[in-house]
Amino acid sequence: MYPDSIKSLIESFKYLPGIGEKTAERLAFSVMDLEDEQVELFSTSLMDVKNKVHKCEVCNSLTEDKICYICSDNTRDNSTLCVVDDYKSVFLFERLGKFNGKYHVLDGLISPLDGINPEDIGLDKLLNRIKKDKFNEIIFAFKPSIEGETTALYIKKVLDGLNIKITRLASGVPIGADIEYVDSLTLERALNDRKLVE
Amino acid sequence: MYPDSIKSLIESFKYLPGIGEKTAERLAFSVMDLEDEQVELFSTSLMDVKNKVHKCEVCNSLTEDKICYICSDNTRDNSTLCVVDDYKSVFLFERLGKFNGKYHVLDGLISPLDGINPEDIGLDKLLNRIKKDKFNEIIFAFKPSIEGETTALYIKKVLDGLNIKITRLASGVPIGADIEYVDSLTLERALNDRKLVE
Repeated sequence: MYPDSIKSLIESFKYLPGIGEKTAERLAFSVMDLEDEQVELFSTSLMDVKNKVHKCEVCNSLTEDKICYICSDNTRDNSTLCVVDDYKSVFLFERLGKFNGKYHVLDGLISPLDGINPEDIGLDKLLNRIKKDKFNEIIFAFKPSIEGETTALYIKKVLDGLNIKITRLASGVPIGADIEYVDSLTLERALNDRKLVE
Repeated sequence: MYPDSIKSLIESFKYLPGIGEKTAERLAFSVMDLEDEQVELFSTSLMDVKNKVHKCEVCNSLTEDKICYICSDNTRDNSTLCVVDDYKSVFLFERLGKFNGKYHVLDGLISPLDGINPEDIGLDKLLNRIKKDKFNEIIFAFKPSIEGETTALYIKKVLDGLNIKITRLASGVPIGADIEYVDSLTLERALNDRKLVE
């Protein structure tokens, strides 16, 4: 029914998460109304993202170079390492602009139930880096979950005796949240981690 | 913060209707997880849609050929012409599968308030075609609106004396709709166009 290239474009949009038939059709037709240069940029950047972007050799974050701009930046605090389980978290913290140390991206979290063991998430690379780079503090910024806890505890155990301060993000009631809607695990953590009012 | 090609891809997704910063970021990252062939098809079909798809010489619908597959199809009913104001309506009717005649796509509807006059919507091409192709019936399938009415009445007047049956889509209460939520114009039309229960 549709011309072939429109059909292919609709199929392509449907590869993307959360985009169904109807939305894909709407988006494909909207491409017809874009400027030539816009479509060209769109088409080129798709290929570039796939071909040029890869993992930073040091931290596993995304870069088009051998080593990402954060790892190359010597004005940053080289003594603090923030370990995350997803490269998107790096951009999240960078956008926040409140952390000036370095990052390391794991390939996910340990999850024995899903068959993901310590050797599957790139821990070797992290441990080698920690031994080499002599950080004073390592911050775990995993999503609060059983897997996050497991991974944090595992790494802490491996690093035992290295005299490095090991921390994790605070858990608790989100600012602005209604206490009655916070899940019980979060509330329990907030109670246990209660802070002195000063 | 992002590698250049990811930045460009985010910008590209933001060209599309209804896609803001957050969604564009999510979609751009999801491209990283696609297969090479999928991204290649996506990239190619974007350019193809822009470069290969154009208006059918006869009916103005979209095609990659000189003349679209509907206009080229001589097994269809050549005596009935469905006039629409948007090429998407052609696909809508084709998907419905209940109309076997030909189509003609206008470049929108007459709207004097917006400065869109009869000469702006490609009426010449339509009128020449009607005079040449000797249709028995012309169906106006415009969206029910002042502009739709105006355009229908204008064309009807121009065709006066040509002995062609001129019809429009029925307006009325949509199937399954709650009568109390139907707007008054629709209800009025449904009342005026009431049908004998047989």
